[in-house]
Amino acid sequence: MKKKVAVILCGSGYLDGSEIREAVGTLWALSQHSNVVDVQCFAPDSAQADVMNCLTSQPVKGETRNQLVESARIARGKVAPLTQLNPREFDGVIMPGGFGAAKNLCNFALAGSKGVVCAELFAVLEPMYTAKKPIGAVCIAPAILALAFKGEKLELTVGADGEAAQEITKLGHRHVVCKPDACVVDKAHRIVTTPAYMYDNAPLHEIFTGIQKLTQEVVSLL
Amino acid sequence: MKKKVAVILCGSGYLDGSEIREAVGTLWALSQHSNVVDVQCFAPDSAQADVMNCLTSQPVKGETRNQLVESARIARGKVAPLTQLNPREFDGVIMPGGFGAAKNLCNFALAGSKGVVCAELFAVLEPMYTAKKPIGAVCIAPAILALAFKGEKLELTVGADGEAAQEITKLGHRHVVCKPDACVVDKAHRIVTTPAYMYDNAPLHEIFTGIQKLTQEVVSLL
Repeated sequence: MKKKVAVILCGSGYLDGSEIREAVGTLWALSQHSNVVDVQCFAPDSAQADVMNCLTSQPVKGETRNQLVESARIARGKVAPLTQLNPREFDGVIMPGGFGAAKNLCNFALAGSKGVVCAELFAVLEPMYTAKKPIGAVCIAPAILALAFKGEKLELTVGADGEAAQEITKLGHRHVVCKPDACVVDKAHRIVTTPAYMYDNAPLHEIFTGIQKLTQEVVSLL
Repeated sequence: MKKKVAVILCGSGYLDGSEIREAVGTLWALSQHSNVVDVQCFAPDSAQADVMNCLTSQPVKGETRNQLVESARIARGKVAPLTQLNPREFDGVIMPGGFGAAKNLCNFALAGSKGVVCAELFAVLEPMYTAKKPIGAVCIAPAILALAFKGEKLELTVGADGEAAQEITKLGHRHVVCKPDACVVDKAHRIVTTPAYMYDNAPLHEIFTGIQKLTQEVVSLL
């Protein structure tokens, strides 16, 4: 019997949705385990927090885009509404980063350690965490776990020590500095994190190596 | 002195722009050669031929998206208008696939062997081809080369023998069947092609292997 891993998307683009390269890297790394793992993408069927022009880095006023519909660009149509993710049916979950992870899946980008996780994602993460199912989080997505499991003393990385790391520490977790081609494994809580584009100028192949290592760790914990 | 390779994008999504995974795979593969190669992305600063809902595969009526602006989602903002690509300054070029390659960069999807290449792309490809600079094309993007260099007897692949391959043959080229984890090298014309998502259900890591081989061949021809 193959194990089942869910990948959580939230749009398609680094400034308002899932970081495209991190999402593709996750699917590429999981593809290498396709003899033992089946993968299904999910995304909230609701509007993104905003729409950004990724060329100018300016918000696009008056336009809305749906997370599920835009995620289908990365998933090649094969993505289901997040409310259809039954946590009992899945053995693990990986969340790529991008500003969408901090604006759509939670409001960490706006509220930092005072933020909250979107209810339909929390409804998935909470039972999976409690059931000791492995959770992987890339780039800024560890902030979602920091908010969801406040005070749980998770070991997480968002790259270098900086503002995001400080907010995570305020939530009662331990921030571990990590390079883009590596990952941090919290064996006690079965959580794996890698910084990816928290290092803005990291070479893409190093980021992929970090995501590949994260995925390998998640698969070994399934 | 590092060599310079241009990557041609045309939006962000498999049904109306660049195939996201193929574009990311190309950038990932080039990143592995960053000691010898500098990479710059380009895209036409004009509207996509259409906007598709990639979840339902239906056209979105009344919406337009700009190829350059959408490509910035893949390029993380680092993409220039295609008219700024000076073919004398670049040593090679790679074109990922996706329906955008056959709808925005040429009209092969609509007109087959009777199609034409968009003028600003032809203005780049023609002098580079004449100067024997290597050109890589992924998925359906070889159709652009087939149209641009009609009768040149190029050796190209678009995967299995099918309708697209027949149209390419009509243009006076030779179609070579090729698996997604491999590529076809036309040494005489310095053109390298790999089928990628011409095989709709190919595993992503095999597609990446094909793109990695293509990139290796292009780099060795620089």
